[in-house]
Amino acid sequence: MSTALVISRNARPSTFTVDAINERGESVPTPIAGEHPLTIYLDKRELVTLMTLGAAPEDLALGYLRNQRLVRSIDDLAAVQVDWDVDAVAVTSRALRQTGRTLWEDEGSGLESRLVRRTVTTGCGQGTVFGDLMDEIDSVRLCGQARLTEEVLYAVMDRVRRHESVYKVAGAVHGCALCSNSGGDRGEILSFVEDVGRHNAVDAIAGWMWRKGVDGGDKIFYTTGRLTSEMVIKCAQMGVPFLLSRSGLTQMGHEIANRVGITMIGRCQGKHYLLFTGSHRFVRATGTAYA
Amino acid sequence: MSTALVISRNARPSTFTVDAINERGESVPTPIAGEHPLTIYLDKRELVTLMTLGAAPEDLALGYLRNQRLVRSIDDLAAVQVDWDVDAVAVTSRALRQTGRTLWEDEGSGLESRLVRRTVTTGCGQGTVFGDLMDEIDSVRLCGQARLTEEVLYAVMDRVRRHESVYKVAGAVHGCALCSNSGGDRGEILSFVEDVGRHNAVDAIAGWMWRKGVDGGDKIFYTTGRLTSEMVIKCAQMGVPFLLSRSGLTQMGHEIANRVGITMIGRCQGKHYLLFTGSHRFVRATGTAYA
Repeated sequence: MSTALVISRNARPSTFTVDAINERGESVPTPIAGEHPLTIYLDKRELVTLMTLGAAPEDLALGYLRNQRLVRSIDDLAAVQVDWDVDAVAVTSRALRQTGRTLWEDEGSGLESRLVRRTVTTGCGQGTVFGDLMDEIDSVRLCGQARLTEEVLYAVMDRVRRHESVYKVAGAVHGCALCSNSGGDRGEILSFVEDVGRHNAVDAIAGWMWRKGVDGGDKIFYTTGRLTSEMVIKCAQMGVPFLLSRSGLTQMGHEIANRVGITMIGRCQGKHYLLFTGSHRFVRATGTAYA
Repeated sequence: MSTALVISRNARPSTFTVDAINERGESVPTPIAGEHPLTIYLDKRELVTLMTLGAAPEDLALGYLRNQRLVRSIDDLAAVQVDWDVDAVAVTSRALRQTGRTLWEDEGSGLESRLVRRTVTTGCGQGTVFGDLMDEIDSVRLCGQARLTEEVLYAVMDRVRRHESVYKVAGAVHGCALCSNSGGDRGEILSFVEDVGRHNAVDAIAGWMWRKGVDGGDKIFYTTGRLTSEMVIKCAQMGVPFLLSRSGLTQMGHEIANRVGITMIGRCQGKHYLLFTGSHRFVRATGTAYA
């Protein structure tokens, strides 16, 4: 990278307290999760408005651009500036800084055509980027050597359970954690993000990885949310071979995980789990790997 | 309505069984929720691809068109045909049937401009229709006379708890129920829809109400999902004054509920609940209404 990415650090407070009345007629001060509109501008053009907790708005914007394949490399970007006075984040390309021409004006970037295509396949809190991503998914190569031991699985589950969280205080958010699966700190949480939308939380971690140059191959991804098609696709795109959740999964999440060879483990609770796909990468405490 | 809406009835099976391996190394046949892409075509033009459980695809398509404000009246539509061989639902307008001209060609429909605007404010499983809907929300008038008694609240919670559901079998879905709040069947479930996306479930109920000509004023809306801004907005658009959830809420959900005067009750579990907004419409078992 030539010069460092200029980035603001404008997280919002995550919880607010409102009064509620309980079944005994008592007034109960109740913490609730923040939710704010955040409009992403890329080289001065309005792209999308996300509703977010606002805990990691810069990484969310970066991860959105990465996971939507709107920007190819973090090195193409010069600045990410969040301004809550106008509920906006301005992402500025190096091209604009250096040449005065926006990414939109660069026909080689393919940005315009990708945005047009996105509008057809993008659902409203619903379908999202399925069409485009399925075309891409077959090119994903996950690390074949990676292994996850039962011991590290339990370590991740325990650390996530003990982690301070907005969820424990206010509920109504989903959390994601990226954990180490190499060296002496296996199972440790490297990045933890919560958001009102489960895809925002994943995107924010993708943005953090992009910004820090973190590779997914020796990592483990944990989500409190369900393992739907999009969640599996995003995990694969980040190159993370292990996807854990305390929730269940859907048929298409299962199909795609099989197709890309992700090791997917659901219903992680206490000492329980269900290993659904990619069992060849999982090593039980007895030391026996699955065929 | 001049002639009846022609509508297919092509629900898909909701659960599938896959093999998983549990913590004791045992193979466990595990039911998981279906998830299928469904592309909505309006007068032969591709609009969006939703990922859905497929339990109520026709109502989902209708509710999507209603809640996105892409079609003004159910009377404008002639047919809704789901074809899973191509994962598509074709919605055909009366205009096309009668005049050979599509809704897209009718400039007065404003369809083209609304779609363009939607692409800017629509997030990817994330932000969605916030921008447009906030403009609209101030025009919503909810029934001022409606009251919800604690007895009916508990009846709704009990019926939803006992209702057969994909969630009980496979998890990984959200459920919504529209319940009666008038006559002899107060608290009874009129429509119950589950889907892998919580907004799909709401949209399918909105589609069902549209198709059946059901008014929201004397109804109660229950969701298993969190009470975010979009959930409150959709409930208000359907004209339902009571919104219940077993989950929590967000700050913006709270703000919007206050603004439109919805009575919003969260954390409904067993005999517990928290009344957050619109307490003037709620009547406790002791018979005392809140000021």
